[in-house]
Formats: sequence, structure tokens, C-alpha cells
Amino acid sequence: MSGVWGNKVKYSIFGESHGTGVGINIDGLPSGIKLDLDAITFEMKRRAPGQDDLSTTRKEKDEFQIISGYFNQRTTGTPLCAMIWNTDMQSKDYAQLKTIIRPGHADYTGSVKYAGFNDFRGGGHFSGRLTAPLVFAGAIAKQILKEKGIEIGGHIYQIAGIYDSPFDKVSINSQLLKMTSQRKFSVIDQNKGDEMITAIHNAKQQQDSVGGVIECAILNLPAGLGSPFFDSVESLLAHLLFSIPGVKGVEFGTGFGMAQMSGSEANDEFYMEEDKVKTFTNHNGGILGGITNGMPLVFKAAFKPTASIGKLQKTIELDKRENTQISVLGRHDPCIVQRALPVVEAVAAMVILDLL
Amino acid sequence: MSGVWGNKVKYSIFGESHGTGVGINIDGLPSGIKLDLDAITFEMKRRAPGQDDLSTTRKEKDEFQIISGYFNQRTTGTPLCAMIWNTDMQSKDYAQLKTIIRPGHADYTGSVKYAGFNDFRGGGHFSGRLTAPLVFAGAIAKQILKEKGIEIGGHIYQIAGIYDSPFDKVSINSQLLKMTSQRKFSVIDQNKGDEMITAIHNAKQQQDSVGGVIECAILNLPAGLGSPFFDSVESLLAHLLFSIPGVKGVEFGTGFGMAQMSGSEANDEFYMEEDKVKTFTNHNGGILGGITNGMPLVFKAAFKPTASIGKLQKTIELDKRENTQISVLGRHDPCIVQRALPVVEAVAAMVILDLL
Amino acid sequence: MSGVWGNKVKYSIFGESHGTGVGINIDGLPSGIKLDLDAITFEMKRRAPGQDDLSTTRKEKDEFQIISGYFNQRTTGTPLCAMIWNTDMQSKDYAQLKTIIRPGHADYTGSVKYAGFNDFRGGGHFSGRLTAPLVFAGAIAKQILKEKGIEIGGHIYQIAGIYDSPFDKVSINSQLLKMTSQRKFSVIDQNKGDEMITAIHNAKQQQDSVGGVIECAILNLPAGLGSPFFDSVESLLAHLLFSIPGVKGVEFGTGFGMAQMSGSEANDEFYMEEDKVKTFTNHNGGILGGITNGMPLVFKAAFKPTASIGKLQKTIELDKRENTQISVLGRHDPCIVQRALPVVEAVAAMVILDLL
Amino acid sequence: MSGVWGNKVKYSIFGESHGTGVGINIDGLPSGIKLDLDAITFEMKRRAPGQDDLSTTRKEKDEFQIISGYFNQRTTGTPLCAMIWNTDMQSKDYAQLKTIIRPGHADYTGSVKYAGFNDFRGGGHFSGRLTAPLVFAGAIAKQILKEKGIEIGGHIYQIAGIYDSPFDKVSINSQLLKMTSQRKFSVIDQNKGDEMITAIHNAKQQQDSVGGVIECAILNLPAGLGSPFFDSVESLLAHLLFSIPGVKGVEFGTGFGMAQMSGSEANDEFYMEEDKVKTFTNHNGGILGGITNGMPLVFKAAFKPTASIGKLQKTIELDKRENTQISVLGRHDPCIVQRALPVVEAVAAMVILDLL
Repeated sequence: MSGVWGNKVKYSIFGESHGTGVGINIDGLPSGIKLDLDAITFEMKRRAPGQDDLSTTRKEKDEFQIISGYFNQRTTGTPLCAMIWNTDMQSKDYAQLKTIIRPGHADYTGSVKYAGFNDFRGGGHFSGRLTAPLVFAGAIAKQILKEKGIEIGGHIYQIAGIYDSPFDKVSINSQLLKMTSQRKFSVIDQNKGDEMITAIHNAKQQQDSVGGVIECAILNLPAGLGSPFFDSVESLLAHLLFSIPGVKGVEFGTGFGMAQMSGSEANDEFYMEEDKVKTFTNHNGGILGGITNGMPLVFKAAFKPTASIGKLQKTIELDKRENTQISVLGRHDPCIVQRALPVVEAVAAMVILDLL
Repeated sequence: MSGVWGNKVKYSIFGESHGTGVGINIDGLPSGIKLDLDAITFEMKRRAPGQDDLSTTRKEKDEFQIISGYFNQRTTGTPLCAMIWNTDMQSKDYAQLKTIIRPGHADYTGSVKYAGFNDFRGGGHFSGRLTAPLVFAGAIAKQILKEKGIEIGGHIYQIAGIYDSPFDKVSINSQLLKMTSQRKFSVIDQNKGDEMITAIHNAKQQQDSVGGVIECAILNLPAGLGSPFFDSVESLLAHLLFSIPGVKGVEFGTGFGMAQMSGSEANDEFYMEEDKVKTFTNHNGGILGGITNGMPLVFKAAFKPTASIGKLQKTIELDKRENTQISVLGRHDPCIVQRALPVVEAVAAMVILDLL
Repeated sequence: MSGVWGNKVKYSIFGESHGTGVGINIDGLPSGIKLDLDAITFEMKRRAPGQDDLSTTRKEKDEFQIISGYFNQRTTGTPLCAMIWNTDMQSKDYAQLKTIIRPGHADYTGSVKYAGFNDFRGGGHFSGRLTAPLVFAGAIAKQILKEKGIEIGGHIYQIAGIYDSPFDKVSINSQLLKMTSQRKFSVIDQNKGDEMITAIHNAKQQQDSVGGVIECAILNLPAGLGSPFFDSVESLLAHLLFSIPGVKGVEFGTGFGMAQMSGSEANDEFYMEEDKVKTFTNHNGGILGGITNGMPLVFKAAFKPTASIGKLQKTIELDKRENTQISVLGRHDPCIVQRALPVVEAVAAMVILDLL
Repeated sequence: MSGVWGNKVKYSIFGESHGTGVGINIDGLPSGIKLDLDAITFEMKRRAPGQDDLSTTRKEKDEFQIISGYFNQRTTGTPLCAMIWNTDMQSKDYAQLKTIIRPGHADYTGSVKYAGFNDFRGGGHFSGRLTAPLVFAGAIAKQILKEKGIEIGGHIYQIAGIYDSPFDKVSINSQLLKMTSQRKFSVIDQNKGDEMITAIHNAKQQQDSVGGVIECAILNLPAGLGSPFFDSVESLLAHLLFSIPGVKGVEFGTGFGMAQMSGSEANDEFYMEEDKVKTFTNHNGGILGGITNGMPLVFKAAFKPTASIGKLQKTIELDKRENTQISVLGRHDPCIVQRALPVVEAVAAMVILDLL
């Protein structure tokens, strides 16, 4: 069991990369929410492949069909299920994958776990395509949060060792989040963005790939969300972030950097600003004792480079249990970080909605 | 709700730092497990305070009393509840904390969440003392895992910017884990350990504190544990690691470092060693697609410096909503990293037991 | 939240009577199960409407489409989602229901719960049509159980005060279950069945309806299933049985009858039969202390008469908050007991699969 | 796993009849609730044994000790754990039970489930003593509900075939509930109560036991509680009711009686009373479509006769796998129905609190 997550709202995802489609069932949404379908489509498009030469050439519009829980333009309060049908599959590229496992991928571990019965075509249920339903669900969560004044947005913080300007964890504001979320390639410093794009192109030419880091912020959260001991805000966000394929590190606020500080540096000192409790710094990323303190919630997620590369790699032929080599065919992303940004925002929105 | 975690085995923790005691109820243990009480005591002692001048002078033996689920030296299979009674409380030191909130602590967020009704003495339910029941539960989990050949151990990877030798993620073995777990101050390179101790002493003298990073390894895991989508091994481990007070970052394998690599560097190439599937490198830390691949599972957790310091800090008096200053009294740890090591190992054991 | 159930296997249902369709996502099925699609179709047909003049004339073939989790004729182990599309809707009959609430139905309570935003057409998400996905899921569960030798079957025990022969709780066998499950109108004593059919026809003519009781047995269960305290077999079965629309009573073994017995009558005395532990009687219905004892598991579920009747009834017009009257239009079942039988068997199969 | 129940509030019970004690951890209570300890003591006393000659002579005051989550006379909002220590154990009576299993008891099934490692003394974790923590938790739930105007109370509806006057499901009121809850032997018609007591005495003299039925009502519930599909109010209440040792049947409203009615009889017709939606009858017991409709919630639970009786019964010696006989020693209740009443009310309170 594993495709179901949530407490107040329960999300169940299903589907495979090269099957009928992918989908999600959302159980526990409030009734009467008027869905902004254009906003959902906008988010889906941010993630959708085939839009430029930085990503896979597989063309999927990622249009969604709402199956249930939606009546007269509003949520009914009963389970809302949505499908994103697959349309552009080229499964023949994947014929070899049944036995020749791709380094860095779930081919081997999936085969062990499912005793070889899993749909291996295009990664099957392990495919990044499963993040499309998450973006759908996240878009709905974002709408509900927005009505409460809560905003979520992120940017590409690093790709291939090139760093964008970081968020100012104390003063980050809504305007900046809007700006980055509307940029096609979401960075604050466009020059750095251009360098990153060049690095992705270089990797592509070399039949290689690059990874990166996404920084995300959540604004206007009330203080008091999250629960000790096991449901700290960090625990819940990290749980979902580490569900996203390719994430290998998560940190909150100054994160690993705090481990090198002294307490007198790292502690965020309090002060009153009119009637509001604030902190001068925000190394804790808006979370103290696992509970939001009203400052911007800021976190980072590290993505490993795309595992599918054309470069020749050593591997094994699983059935024969022999060593061999592989050059991964198929249409792959030389970098998934820019497409992963809306996914990161989506799961953050899902977590916050569950906490409210 | 939040003090309950687990799927097959459910752990419920309770208690406060300055109340009657702390405890844990473990629901779903197999029956017939002969508990090695000495091994549990050993683990409890690794975490217990007051053992040297590196930690708080509060003296708690952290002796445990098993209340239920244990009959004729064996687990019954019904809920096993254990108490660790509080014995050495000096609550008067905490009188000020009701209104003057400590920077970096849960005083403020706890007060908001519980509307001021929480037990604020010594951090109450937010206290690091709540990790004692986790170590108890982890010690039982470790025993069960050990019978299956699975071993868990860690070391202090960094304190105050001083780095121990890292684990070799491919060849790390049982002997090394045993060695580090028996050291009072768990490092691989004792010279580096001495430097760290000096740094802690310095911090203490300056009424300040330091943070650090723990590296942990799990050996001899079968391939195939963990479940896409939401219950990846990374998700489950990170969930519990971020429940430990003070953890602000978690990474698996090369973690954030992978975000700067190319795919051809980061992918762990496969090969056959006799009849075993192995990888030449282990940047993925033994996890692919959220599922164990049979290589050592390696992760790091970053701890921020102890929030309680004697140094004068700016803060507010919550009731009056006025700015003020605080020098935190009480008996505090200048560094909690060394005492947190058995806690990290414990939650790792709890997660792995739940996955098996 | 509420449309999700299960521990090891998680079932999420969704859909509405007059929307796109109804469906179910099954998370946690074992991989490699070869599905017998004909057997699933057979079960779906047992429940499907429009097959004779005892049930609604709405014609739905209840054909299912498997969306995911199924590859090369076998389960993959990843979420298996299936849709049953709606084809024969006549929603105009339901126009009045938005405000004039039907006695005995969820119109009023649904409207309160969902603040009037629920899809009221044909009962929407409250419709008995939502039991179609349960029968689908139960058919899969039955197949998996059958491979382990476990069989589930029931019969109509009572309709309109007419009683079929009861199961012999000690000696009931597989042949009898097969016989009743293949009968179109599932009774043991066909004369009694004919009387019941006449009673249903009479009710129909009078624009009225009748209720009844289903008796169900599960054979060849191993002893030791179920868990004190809260997950007794009775608790889990009753939980799902009371989820079926129309069920108002559940009893195990002799049930309410045991409350009038003395202990010396009610206790099922043990004896050895070769190497097997057996009981002479089976008043406890195969469950002791919430755990199966290896005897046939026998239970009954009481269904109230169909709430939708043509007869004029007093009710209110909710929007105007005025008293009025209603004669419920639409195509309704004068009795749902015979169609509910495969649903009862299905949820029983789901529970047992979860317990194994 | 099984000793943990609840969604918003999570209850974990633990303990054994002849061990250290029994207890419960309650996770998720609101903070700031001023507990009425006398009211809790009163409820505990209603269930406590040894108070008259109708129940076991084991004398347990059932005093509770609150371990955590309670500070300055109020709940803190963090887990509230309470212990009820065992004081009057006579375990030698149970020595035979290790191998000679009692008919009607969990001795056999517990031994199979826990592979013989369970604490068999006095039923161990299966003992009715485990209901003491439930009464404690229910007493707290009752207090919270009372502040919202919700009242819960029941009476003995039947013992040994003697019936008390039933609740009037439409007009039942608070005064009646208070009256029955304060009676030592809770019936409406005291003459019938005297007959029941005589029947219990007779059973006791014959070294036998009797069963019975409890009827319970919940008043002033808001309409709209409960969730289709799987979390109907009936499902949740039945789940917990069937967790109580000895319960073999549960019905809501007219329950099994509805199965013999026609729709025109069984449907509760609606009308407006001032601005309130009411029904003329209440066969549905205040629940429509699994959701409360604002009418009194009424249900019944059937208890089998106490399994432990002195009368000689056939059974087996499990270790030797031989037939034998048993006359159960120890101090047993000839009837547990009267002591079970506060338990039934307690679990009802727990369910309703979770639903609000």
C-alpha cells in the first residue's frame, strides 16, 4: 500500500506511463468550491512535456477529465476523481527494458518488489508522469489556499552547479512568487537562468543529464499548524517531497547550513511588529518545534540528474544475470528540475491544505 | 493528532519533560520475541543525560518500566507499553518561560497551537526528553532486525564545522558500525572527535551551542522494501527523522551533492557479483525509485545548534506583547548531536521494521 | 473523508448515479494475480439492474474498464483502478428531488452535510449504484481467497417476513454455497423463494417496497484472523456491512438470539476431530474474542425496505421549509435484497483479504 | 495492529487483566478542557467490579492515574495517557487455563494468534477489564459532548428474556437518560429490573450465566454527521461496539424489525416543526444514508452470556490435543450486561467526538 496519502483529504493516485492514463481520486474536499479550470490547466501546462527542447519530445497535452465529485461547476464534497489519458506513447523504445535495467532507475527495484509483473514500459507506475495527477490535485489545493490568502511559489535555485539568487527568507513577498511562477523557466536572476539553459543543452548534446535544487516558499500561513511529535510540518512536507521521483535531499530554512552555526547565530530572535510576533532572521524557515510560526515557510528539495541518458553505461541483463551495457533510448528530459517545480509546489499545497 | 505513527506497528508516545514521565505504547509487535533488556538499557544510556560535561547536568537514569505486552520474558503480541518516569526535575528554572519565549524553541508556536494550555516546563511535550521512548522502541526494533541480519549504526559526521571521515557508502561493514556504536563519542576518526569535543566545550564556555550532522547506515537490507508512490523509503525515513527535535535537513546517499552531478556521474552502474546484483557506486544511498536495492542504505540528518543558550538574546514577553531579552536558565546541552545519534538509529529501526 | 477503506489493501470509491460513472481504485493488491474477467463479469451481473421485473428497469450492463494496475492479464501490484461508466440515465425524473426530500433517503442528510452542493440526481454518490465498484473489488478479492481455499457465499434468509431455511452453522459446505450463488434468486428452499417473489410483486403493485435479511457464510478460514481490541473480525465486517446502503442490523452467529440464552447453551463446546479443533455448536459464528476459530464464519445483515416508493408520503419542501407530499418517480426496485446479496459477499471478501 | 482507533482523536489501549494494569493513551484531545474528575470517577464506578453480588467478587476500585497531557486541571492538547493499576489479582485460579481452553472464550483463538505467547491469566489482553480504559476515555468524551449539549445514555433493554420498556425513539428526552444513568441497575421499569436481578441470581446459583441487550440513545446531535461511503455513523458505531467483548449483534433504530416492514411503514415521513426538520417516526434511528438527521440516535447491542461458568463443559486440552472437561474457576460475573452499559455509552461518546 502506498498510492494513498493524507489525513483530512485523502489522495489516491494510479496509472502508468504507457497504459490507459494516469489519475487521482481526491477524497474529503470541501463542498461548494468553484474550480478555476483555467488555473488548473495553467499548472498542468507548467509540468507538461514536449513544450521546448529542454524536455522530452513526448507530446502530452495533459488535459484532464473530471470523472466525479464535480456538479454545476462546483465540488460536491464527495470524492473528486480525475483522469489524464495517455495519448502519445511509443512503447517499442522500451522493449529492451524488461531485462536490461537502467542505472539510477527503478527498473531493478520495481522488478524485485513486484516479482517482475510490473508494467515496465516507460517506467510504468514509477514514471515521472505520475506527477501530473499531483499537479492537478495541487492546483485545486492552491485555489482553496489562495482564498485564505496563502500563496505558494518556488524557483529553480540551482541547476548544474549554477545558482539563482536565493529567496530572502524574511522579506519574500507575493509579487516575487507571482513573477517566478509565470516565467517559463522559473528563476529570479534571468542571466543565471540563461546559463542553466545552456548547461542543459550541453548535457543533452553529450547524451547526459543534469540535476538541481528547487527552493519553495509558502506565505501568509497562520502560526500554529503542524503537530508534535510525528506530524511536524517538516515531517509532512518531507514525506511528500521525497515521494517525487528524483528527490534525494530536503532542508528547511537554512537547513544543513544551520548544522555549522552556533546557537546564537541560528536562533531567530523574536520581536513585536505592531501586534505581530516576528523574527529578525528566518533560519528555521518558518517552523519551530514542527509548528509554523507565521514567518515565510521556506524549504529546498534536491533533484538528482535524470537517470535516463543516452551515454553508454554498465549494467546487467536481469534475466540472464549477466553483465552488459546500455544506452537508454526513448525520449528523455536532459533535466527535469524546471518541470518538477510545479510538482514541488503542488505537494506543498496538498500538505498545507491537509494541515488547515 | 500526531503522537501516533506507523502502519504495521503503531507507536504512540506521550509525556512531558517535567510531568510524571514519558512513555510509549507499541501496538503490533510480533509475539514471542525474547527481549534483551541489557541491550535496551545500553541504548537508553547512550541517549541519557548527565553522563559527562558535554550534556545537561540533569541526571536521569532513563530506566524503563514495561507496563504491558510482556510475559515470561517475551513479547505477547498485544500492545507493549513502557514508562520512563521523571526523577530529577527542577521546574523552577522554567517559571519565566510561560511568557518570555525562547528564540529557536517551540515556546511560541506551542503556545499558539495549544492556546496557552500546554505544559511549558522544560519544553513539556516538545522536550528532547520525548526521544527517550523512541530509543526504547528503537532498541526493540533493532533486536528484531538483528535476528534478520539487519544492522543499523551511525556516527557524528560533523559538529561545529569539524568533519569526521564519511562512511564509504559501498563497502561500509558491520565491524565499523559496531565500533562507532560502542564509542562514547561516536566518530570514526578520534582526532576529529577530540576537536569536536573541544568545540563543544568552547561553545559551553561562551554560553553558546553548536549543531552538527549525523550519518547513519543500514546494512543487509533485502532489495524490494518501500512502496511507490507515497511510501518511498526516503519518505518514511524522512518523516520520522524530521520528527526528531532539531532536525532541519535530511539527505540520502550523496543527497544535495547529486544535484550538482551529471547523470553519468550520479547513476550507480550495476554489475553482478556472483549471483548478487550490486552497484559500483552508491550515490543513491541504497534506494532507487523509493525502494531498497540491496546496497547499504545511507543517509544524513542535520541538527541545528541547541536553542537553549545562556547568551543574552532578543525576544518578547508574550502576554504583554512587549520586546524584552532572555538568557535561558536551566541545565542545557551545549550540543545535542552526540546524544541524538541513538535517536536517529532508533527511528531508522522503527521505519525498517514497519517496512518488513 | 470516507470513501477510502482498508489497511493492507486500500479501496477508494468514487462516482455518482447520474454522472460520468462510478469507479474504484484498489491499492495494495499483490502482483501477478491472473484475473478471471469472466468471474468478475458474472458477479457484476448478479448485482446489475434491469434483468427482471423484480428490480428497477434502468438497464446498465455494468461493464467495467480496468484503467491501471493490470498488464499482460495480471495484476502489476500497483494501484488497480476500474471504471463502470453510466449509460442509461433518465435524470429528469429527479428534478423535483432537489427540494422535495424523499422519506427514508439521504436527500435531507446529504443536503445538510454538503451544504446543498451534492449531486442529487438519482441519489448521486449515495446511490446503490456505488455498490457496483464494491462488487468489482469483491470479485477480485474472492479470486485471491479462492486460491487459498476460502469460499464466501450467501442466500436470502428473509424477505417480507418469509423465511428461507437457515444455514446449518456447523456443517455448511462448499456445494451449498455454489448452489445458492448460481441461483438467480438465491434461496435454499425454492418454494420459499417463490413466496418471496410473489410478495415483491405485490409490493410493486401497491407502489410499495419490502426489506429482508441476508445470511452469509465464509468457509475454510484459518483460525487466528482478527485483532483485539478494535479490529475484531466482527468490527471490520460490521464496518463494511453498515456502509452498504439500507443495512440497519448486523449479527454474528446466533447474534441477538444469544442474548436470550444461558452461558451453558451459548458456549460452543470444543472437541478434537482428528488433529483439528472443532466446536459442537457454532453460536459464535466462527469468531471468539474477535478472532476466527476455524469454524464457518456466519453472519446476517438486515436491509430496510427500499425507501423510494410510489405511494404518497408526507414530506417537506426543503428550500421553502414547508410541508408537502411526494410520490417518488423514477425506476426503483420494489426490493433490493436479492441484488444486495453479491454486495454483501463482496465486502466480506474485501475484509477477509485485508485480514490475511 | 489493533489496539489503536480513531481519526481526529486516536485512542491506544494496552494492558492485561493480571499484569501491572491497564491504560489508554488519548491523542488529539483539544487543549484547555477542564476535566471533571468526579464525573470520570462516577463512570468508572458504574463499570467497576465487586460492588454487589451480581458481579465478580474481584475488588478493583478502578482508580485512574493521569500520566500526561493534563496540567493545571486542564488538558494540554498533547497526548493524555491514563493508567488503571491492577490491585486485586488471584492468578492461581488461572493456572489450568494455559492448556485447558474455556468454551466461548478467546483462550483458543488468542493462543493461535499469538502462538501461545499471550498472557492467558484472566483473559489477559482479552479481558473485559480492558473496557475500564474505554470508560475513562468515554467519560472525557462525554464531558466535551455535554458542553455542546449532546447527551448519551442507555438502559438494560433485556436480560434473560425479560424486557424493559423500550425507549420511545421519537420523544426520548434528557430527563429519562439522567434517571437511568443514575440507577444502580439501569432499567426504566424497576419491576422488570427486579425480575432481571432474580434471573441473574438464579443463573449464578446454577453456576451458569445470562446475556442481554443494551439500548442506547444520543440526543441533540446536529444533522450532517457521518460520511458516505465507508464512514457511515452506523459503520463507526458498530466498529467500536463490536470491539466490546461479548457483543454479537448491533442494530440501529428498528433494526432487524425494519427488514419485515414495507417501505410505507418503515420510511420516516418528514415534517416541519417551527424551523426544524423532524420525522413522525424514527425507525431509522436518527441516521439516513449513514448521516445523522437530527432525530435521536438510537441503537441496540446484544451481549452473549458470560462465557466463564462453573458448570461442567466439554473442551480440549490444547497441548495434548485431547478431549477433556472444564468447570471454570475464578471470580466471574453471572451477567455482564449491567456493567457493560457504561462501556457502550463510552464508545458511543468516543465515536461521536471523533465525528464532530
